[in-house]
Amino acid sequence: MRKIEHIGIAVKNLEESNLLFEKLFGAPPYKMEEVASEGVKTSFFMNGPNKIELLKATNPESPIAKFLEKKGEGIHHIAFDVEDIVSEIKRLQSEGFTVLNEIPKKGADNKLVAFLHPKGTNGVLIELCQEIR
Amino acid sequence: MRKIEHIGIAVKNLEESNLLFEKLFGAPPYKMEEVASEGVKTSFFMNGPNKIELLKATNPESPIAKFLEKKGEGIHHIAFDVEDIVSEIKRLQSEGFTVLNEIPKKGADNKLVAFLHPKGTNGVLIELCQEIR
Repeated sequence: MRKIEHIGIAVKNLEESNLLFEKLFGAPPYKMEEVASEGVKTSFFMNGPNKIELLKATNPESPIAKFLEKKGEGIHHIAFDVEDIVSEIKRLQSEGFTVLNEIPKKGADNKLVAFLHPKGTNGVLIELCQEIR
Repeated sequence: MRKIEHIGIAVKNLEESNLLFEKLFGAPPYKMEEVASEGVKTSFFMNGPNKIELLKATNPESPIAKFLEKKGEGIHHIAFDVEDIVSEIKRLQSEGFTVLNEIPKKGADNKLVAFLHPKGTNGVLIELCQEIR
């Protein structure tokens, strides 16, 4: 856990939210990327050492579509940067956390990712992410 | 907007959550602080260039008590570090954002803070914070 890599925010209209966050940060997204396996389209904004990821559902079965239906727009997850995702998963499991992806999966922005169950983390969906080298 | 200064997480039991986040980050909170004017008790954890702030309500009128009642435990706000909060408030107002505290107020951790209305930011409660020099 070296820093907050990014915060993921679920939005309904990616184009409108891109303009909104461009006004907030003073710069447009540096990347837009679709992750078909997750049913999401994403935009990334740089903010110093951190990023903001906007997430829009691309189909009704997407986890983001379900989140929007249940909770509306807002913060969906926090992602922490880790050096070695496999050893960090083992460490957190030994501390009693429930890891939803024991085998890390390919996420957006050239990352291997794994999520912790929010029931064990005060309702916060936490993502571990490691840059693919 | 120089970086994510911290993420604020609303919790019910600060002592239990301190232990949980100590396991997550491998270190205990570096500071605990009560902000009587906001009706909160807080703990701060370092995570590289960023912080996590846990917030517990100290009275039923606290904004955190109301948040917990309505939404349960989870992420309450994102705080961005700014160099000059007064000029940043003016810039954001001119971009159409609704600033809830036109005059910044004293927050936890030696900061001047102001919040943006979440209706104008995709449901995300955004805090601006400037270190008090």
